[in-house]
Amino acid sequence: MSFAFAVQYEDKQSAARLGMMHTPHGDVPTPVFMPVGTQATVKTLAPRDLERLGATLILANTYHLYLRPGPDVVAEMGGLHRFMAWRGPILTDSGGFQVFSMEGLRKVTEDGVVFRSHVDGSEHVFTPEKVMRIQEQLGADIIMCFDECATPTDYAYSKAAMERTHRWAERCKAAHTRPDQALFGIVQGGIFPDLRRQSAGFIASLDFPGIAIGGLSVGESKQEMYRTLELLEPELPRHKPRYLMGVGAPEDILEAVARGVDMFDCVLPTRLARNGAVFNRTGRLNLRNAQYTRDPRPIEDGCACYTCQNFSRAYMRHLIMSDEILGLHLATIHNVHFLLQLMRDIRKAIAEDRFALFKDDFLAAFRVPDEQVRARNRALRGSRKAARSGAKG
Amino acid sequence: MSFAFAVQYEDKQSAARLGMMHTPHGDVPTPVFMPVGTQATVKTLAPRDLERLGATLILANTYHLYLRPGPDVVAEMGGLHRFMAWRGPILTDSGGFQVFSMEGLRKVTEDGVVFRSHVDGSEHVFTPEKVMRIQEQLGADIIMCFDECATPTDYAYSKAAMERTHRWAERCKAAHTRPDQALFGIVQGGIFPDLRRQSAGFIASLDFPGIAIGGLSVGESKQEMYRTLELLEPELPRHKPRYLMGVGAPEDILEAVARGVDMFDCVLPTRLARNGAVFNRTGRLNLRNAQYTRDPRPIEDGCACYTCQNFSRAYMRHLIMSDEILGLHLATIHNVHFLLQLMRDIRKAIAEDRFALFKDDFLAAFRVPDEQVRARNRALRGSRKAARSGAKG
Repeated sequence: MSFAFAVQYEDKQSAARLGMMHTPHGDVPTPVFMPVGTQATVKTLAPRDLERLGATLILANTYHLYLRPGPDVVAEMGGLHRFMAWRGPILTDSGGFQVFSMEGLRKVTEDGVVFRSHVDGSEHVFTPEKVMRIQEQLGADIIMCFDECATPTDYAYSKAAMERTHRWAERCKAAHTRPDQALFGIVQGGIFPDLRRQSAGFIASLDFPGIAIGGLSVGESKQEMYRTLELLEPELPRHKPRYLMGVGAPEDILEAVARGVDMFDCVLPTRLARNGAVFNRTGRLNLRNAQYTRDPRPIEDGCACYTCQNFSRAYMRHLIMSDEILGLHLATIHNVHFLLQLMRDIRKAIAEDRFALFKDDFLAAFRVPDEQVRARNRALRGSRKAARSGAKG
Repeated sequence: MSFAFAVQYEDKQSAARLGMMHTPHGDVPTPVFMPVGTQATVKTLAPRDLERLGATLILANTYHLYLRPGPDVVAEMGGLHRFMAWRGPILTDSGGFQVFSMEGLRKVTEDGVVFRSHVDGSEHVFTPEKVMRIQEQLGADIIMCFDECATPTDYAYSKAAMERTHRWAERCKAAHTRPDQALFGIVQGGIFPDLRRQSAGFIASLDFPGIAIGGLSVGESKQEMYRTLELLEPELPRHKPRYLMGVGAPEDILEAVARGVDMFDCVLPTRLARNGAVFNRTGRLNLRNAQYTRDPRPIEDGCACYTCQNFSRAYMRHLIMSDEILGLHLATIHNVHFLLQLMRDIRKAIAEDRFALFKDDFLAAFRVPDEQVRARNRALRGSRKAARSGAKG
């Protein structure tokens, strides 16, 4: 068995746990955050940057790589690891999120989804079997079942999508051939407790080596997401890794770890960086702000990342205002470091029986954009996404 | 004396020489190529990338840094070295090339030049004294006299600009106060032998620690440039570094080294990279070309750069076609490595008395875009430059 997972320690005050995942390309301590490398690159970072940042597992998007350069090209070049020169473990998503984000651009049948490429408008079909074949060509360590991601607050749609996701999970399992790749199932069911419990039970029954929670962080409130994680926690097998797809805001990671989640991915740190926004312990700084023009301090005092060890906010602002690519690179380094350091701190706190305290202290200092701002940002992202025809990365 | 230069070896078959420049931030073996860091960053590269590439001296543009973030900000942040976290030597140009590239946007008087910012349209004045003050605030190891760069084929204009450049050189020398900064003079005179000889004699008489050759590679033919370098060679003091401004095509570097030039700068390797074009021993590759879709080879077999050690042409093409910043970064790494390796090879060949052979072998293999292509590229660059209002970087 190429893939294995073991829970190493369980928190006494919450459902948080420490674990270790073994993959053909290396071990991954959990809870883990995966930087997103949509098009076979974590935007602005070279593999050696990711290594220095201590990334242990990265995500690549099947939808994007299927369209460009194509899975046959990646396979011919030796698979995704060799193609992008990343020696560590990789997870590919199934493309489900992307094709179901394309309102008006898709047609769903029991067999699969017809959609149009955001690159050139050409028509394509994803079926569970085809998505398995593509992910086998890409060659990641962990691959995902093809699922249908519904509007999480629409009961009828959530139920139908969940049931189809279950039938597709069986087809994915049957189509999966590479024993060196671990195939994870995905739980759906929107924000509805009965659907979520039913989905957790069904997906668990298929005995995948890992289980993902899909259909969250797609428009519901934070409280709805946290409640859904709480009700799922006792329904999921304890000895398998649990992956909350698409989640990566620091406050959400902490709440989800407390509810038993082991794996996360999100474009937030890399996308924010390219907008000139950076994390620190107090929340976010917008480097375009004029107040940083002559600010000699690093983004965060005491931060060990290359950016903070070498550059002032004044220099970072200068780069961003001058449209210099180095500004995007250095901001990305800082934000990815921030998330990976948060995960290291979380793991240490769990190991030392002080996770609840760590979480409270972090959240007390970290100013979260309020729901209104989040909703507006989501709407902005949505309109940009529509313009790009469903590309999430 | 903070700055010193010594010729260490002279080629027997040409005017090529090996030298060593000492600056407050380190030693620089010559002949040297300076990567251009227009806005206090060599585009897409972090200082640690430049260190790994073996860059020993970089150039930054006074015009751009004067406008943004402003020399007072750079000075307040500890000077250019600290601001951009580059520990090695820096040279700043005088801004003369940039302001004289702004057709219709400038007014020249004996006192100086009135020009408009390409950033916000605001009006500014550069005088020799002001340019000295700005360069002293920036704090580079080598600074340049403010000169007038004329159309090189217009005799009357070249003569008037040269004479003004001489008067301004005297004013720059008088205004220069920081003994830790070496002020270089600039020879002008277009493609006209009598003017060039006169200018070389006058600038040499002012006893600057280094002498630059300005007003070349700005529209004249390659043969005119080489002839001008030939006639200048015996006119320039042998014991001072000679800097051919704005030149960086590999074939031009070889021809200029053979004519006694020690220093070069050019945006060519970084700008070409951002257009998806990369150098190798046979000339240039355009990575957008479909022929590289499934090409598993590196850009250049045997190349020691990070890009060639890790990535295929297929991956590079994928990044460039997908508008991924990493593609620009990796192509820039390769092109800067190519130029810096060329300089290392040139120095080794001179030391081993085989420079002429090395030059012939290199030029026999290296396909140079013909004059027609060059002229078209220049015109394209010119129209883009006009759109950006005179920004050279």
